[in-house]
Amino acid sequence: MRIIGIDPGLLHTGWAIIDVAGSSRTYVASGVILPPTKLPLPERLDFIFRGVSELCEKFKPDVCSIEIIFSNKNPKTTLLLGHARAAAIVSVAHNNIPVFEYEPNIIKKALTGAGHADKEQIYKMLKILLPAAKPKTADESDAIAIAMTHANMARFNVQ
Amino acid sequence: MRIIGIDPGLLHTGWAIIDVAGSSRTYVASGVILPPTKLPLPERLDFIFRGVSELCEKFKPDVCSIEIIFSNKNPKTTLLLGHARAAAIVSVAHNNIPVFEYEPNIIKKALTGAGHADKEQIYKMLKILLPAAKPKTADESDAIAIAMTHANMARFNVQ
Repeated sequence: MRIIGIDPGLLHTGWAIIDVAGSSRTYVASGVILPPTKLPLPERLDFIFRGVSELCEKFKPDVCSIEIIFSNKNPKTTLLLGHARAAAIVSVAHNNIPVFEYEPNIIKKALTGAGHADKEQIYKMLKILLPAAKPKTADESDAIAIAMTHANMARFNVQ
Repeated sequence: MRIIGIDPGLLHTGWAIIDVAGSSRTYVASGVILPPTKLPLPERLDFIFRGVSELCEKFKPDVCSIEIIFSNKNPKTTLLLGHARAAAIVSVAHNNIPVFEYEPNIIKKALTGAGHADKEQIYKMLKILLPAAKPKTADESDAIAIAMTHANMARFNVQ
């Protein structure tokens, strides 16, 4: 099973591809979709849509894993993030790839065993679980964590 | 100039097509995109994306007009609405149609002269301005209002 993990954002959308066979996980690729700065919202969303679509065509993932977002103390930012998230989801769904959505604490728990783990703990676990991955940014690292979450959840059938 | 107005929503996405030539406005068509009930979010967003894409192919609008949304007392609902809105926007942008975004009070003002006009006033103005339009739902009526807003704003170059 090949998983694409996506960490969406209007400025940078992290992505990661991992392969899963039984208990083994293999890092395939990861990166960040970076729309040109100052691109208006519609073109920015289309840039994310096209970027994700190209990844689906290139890597042919079987499933997509993406984080569930909640409205926080900055609802405006969350609303914009929701737009980026929807652009990524609609791109994957348009490519007929099923999308699995995970809450942030499930992602933390699936990787570290603790729902309240911090970024540093998750990063350390990723280095142990997937040493070939060398994420250069937090968005890339988060995308790997999201992909790995689906691998672990699917394995233990906790979803 | 042919305008598509869109009033997005996860349950029903209203749409309207109007033609503009100088001061004349002609109603072309309107309707509602209704994803099947109980469709999961990703497929629901793709349904909206495909629905808007079909409208763009069929009616070949020159521009799209859509409402700007703000986070209100129910941030969760707004966040989901943002997803539907993004699916519609990315569909239009993907069809290389420029998108114009208007705040709710601008829509009210462009149609009635008052930024605080209620739905009933807007509906009455639409009946006067566009008698051929016979919207059957509020979503359809709102989409016509949004399309008409761009017609009026573009005419007076207030945008």
